[in-house]
Amino acid sequence: MLLPRASLLVPSNLCSDTTCHGLRLKPHASDYAALIPWSGIKGLRDTIAAGIAERDGFPANSDDIFLTDGASPGVHMMMQLLLRSEKDGILCPIPQYPLYSASIALHGGTLVPYYLDEATGWGLEISEVKKQLEEAKSKGITVRALVVINPGNPTGQVLAEANQREIVEFCHKEGLVLLADEVYQENIYVDDKKFDSFKKISRSMGYGEEDIALVSFQSVSKGYYGECGKRGGYMEVTGFSRDVKEQIYKVASVNLCSNISGQILASLVMSPPKPGDESFESFTAERDGILSSLARRAKALEKAFNSLEGVTCNRAEGAMYLFPRLHLPAKAIKAAEALNVAPDAYYTHRLLDATGIVAVPGSGFGQVPGTWHVRYTILPQEDKIAAVVSKFTAFHEALIAEFRD
Amino acid sequence: MLLPRASLLVPSNLCSDTTCHGLRLKPHASDYAALIPWSGIKGLRDTIAAGIAERDGFPANSDDIFLTDGASPGVHMMMQLLLRSEKDGILCPIPQYPLYSASIALHGGTLVPYYLDEATGWGLEISEVKKQLEEAKSKGITVRALVVINPGNPTGQVLAEANQREIVEFCHKEGLVLLADEVYQENIYVDDKKFDSFKKISRSMGYGEEDIALVSFQSVSKGYYGECGKRGGYMEVTGFSRDVKEQIYKVASVNLCSNISGQILASLVMSPPKPGDESFESFTAERDGILSSLARRAKALEKAFNSLEGVTCNRAEGAMYLFPRLHLPAKAIKAAEALNVAPDAYYTHRLLDATGIVAVPGSGFGQVPGTWHVRYTILPQEDKIAAVVSKFTAFHEALIAEFRD
Repeated sequence: MLLPRASLLVPSNLCSDTTCHGLRLKPHASDYAALIPWSGIKGLRDTIAAGIAERDGFPANSDDIFLTDGASPGVHMMMQLLLRSEKDGILCPIPQYPLYSASIALHGGTLVPYYLDEATGWGLEISEVKKQLEEAKSKGITVRALVVINPGNPTGQVLAEANQREIVEFCHKEGLVLLADEVYQENIYVDDKKFDSFKKISRSMGYGEEDIALVSFQSVSKGYYGECGKRGGYMEVTGFSRDVKEQIYKVASVNLCSNISGQILASLVMSPPKPGDESFESFTAERDGILSSLARRAKALEKAFNSLEGVTCNRAEGAMYLFPRLHLPAKAIKAAEALNVAPDAYYTHRLLDATGIVAVPGSGFGQVPGTWHVRYTILPQEDKIAAVVSKFTAFHEALIAEFRD
Repeated sequence: MLLPRASLLVPSNLCSDTTCHGLRLKPHASDYAALIPWSGIKGLRDTIAAGIAERDGFPANSDDIFLTDGASPGVHMMMQLLLRSEKDGILCPIPQYPLYSASIALHGGTLVPYYLDEATGWGLEISEVKKQLEEAKSKGITVRALVVINPGNPTGQVLAEANQREIVEFCHKEGLVLLADEVYQENIYVDDKKFDSFKKISRSMGYGEEDIALVSFQSVSKGYYGECGKRGGYMEVTGFSRDVKEQIYKVASVNLCSNISGQILASLVMSPPKPGDESFESFTAERDGILSSLARRAKALEKAFNSLEGVTCNRAEGAMYLFPRLHLPAKAIKAAEALNVAPDAYYTHRLLDATGIVAVPGSGFGQVPGTWHVRYTILPQEDKIAAVVSKFTAFHEALIAEFRD
């Protein structure tokens, strides 16, 4: 074994270089996974794998972990691998966080939309996914993967376990890669829902490495930590052949490695203090304080939106968003059209002008044609929520009065 | 002006989200450059622009600065923008740091090689670049940009000012984007050469924004700082139209922002302590100590390589590498071929096995067919250089003896 000797003479402080370690000499890039930090520092990946195993109750392998600068670069890497041409498609929820549409566009593939059902709390209906898959196939599109965002962004729903099992079954049967955006896994605000990873669900169904290809994305930007400026995250890649894994290593190697502070934070997120640890009590108090404050803010905003005339808002179950529907007066829609702006964009623009409150028009995420929404985060400081609600309400009432049919 | 009001109610801790700020509402993404950190924090970009202006003696604009997670993502962004299909080509030096070949391959373009001239100290001959450009054109390739790495990686040369002027003139005349990899700008080890940025050279020739499109890449991983794990860097993008700049913002926005520690380090690299500052003396002593040690190591290794039988090595002028040529005995080449391995890879593998020293085969960087090289860094600690030289020499002598014709 040469490594200990080699490490004596390899420059240690400046060697983050794809070519420094003579990779070309070895038949399998993954032989180097333990040595070369392209997928992240081994000890940190070990910690993350142990954290996943503890969370799920099923084993996790540190060689499946790729540390990334936030979740986004992991998504890009997978799109780069999956999309060969515009004839390759990815099933994505609508509404969806636009990272997916942007990444699919950047990598030259086709987004195959499936609509979440607003009437059932942004439910993910397998019949809808199946319909869209068949329609894409009939157009000559090879659908390669299904994106699920759970808890949902921008829609804030949490999938029921039975629904997750249907999704796993569907991907297994259709041979689709399941791309599970699970960055909001800590952000659940209702007692009747909990987070289960798709890995846990699929393993509990008896599906192993051979049965389903599954990628789970995690980030340090969300949860109760919210360290988005650190750009930490990872993806857990399971159910791919060794050949494909080597291609993922290769793509990761082009960018050398993700930033070390982000790598460390990602490992901390997956290994919080445990009972008996010195900081366990203070950690638990702070975490629970943040999450229960977020839950109160979600509830207050949900209630506020539902009390507005012509606004309906599903329950804020998780993530960091509400996605209320605006039933706008016909005159308001006409006013927007006269300016060549989507009605929800017109609404948010007017909101910004009148109150300084920033909300994002639903048209930025996709929505059933003819429906209009806004996404609003639950993140204003708790002591500002009352002021937000009061300003938002006053604005909305004035706008409705202005355009009343 | 709405921003101050808006900022009161926008969640400040978790808003690194492409959709948070309602970008779709505004006609020009760059209007948001001051507010939204996709290209990096405004104050840090200001500092970097001021540092560039001071370095070059010509103005720099913080709106031209895009902070990135190391230099690599900036290179990818530019390749993504420049390469539309395999009919688009990028002129790259051979030998070259393989980020460029990898990025061109990933983005589906064509690498148009130009060979550096080993006989003239890895000189960049415009006649060679011109010849390759014409040849590419004759094959139906649209050449869009020229990559120059100065100081050179893996070749360690520093371009002469006259040579830089020729390159600028050539790009201006041919309408090529000049992609200047200037990450080793602090690493110059000889008295008769100095670093001048391509921006300084082009401005001193009287060429402004309208005359040449120029991108300069910088990183916190090199120089005397060597903070590669922090993934900090920037690119300065000049001479592009507003429309193109907006596309760069758009691509940057998909990945939200680069990590904040790296952003801060990039600004520090471009604003070192100045005379009169409290830390100026200690900073200067440490910087000069590191750089003069690197210069001594470069000189010692250059001398050592040139004293080996059948090895010739150009002067170590800059960067962090030597790229000695191996004139291997015919029997050694046959032994490598029998194993289906490139002779220089065979050499470095044997070197690793025998000594624990890692060197990279020249075939990883490209080289004139039939010539063989290794890249070796000057980064082993100074007190280990003698041991490296002694082990390397003993290995080389034994190998030559084994295969002597």
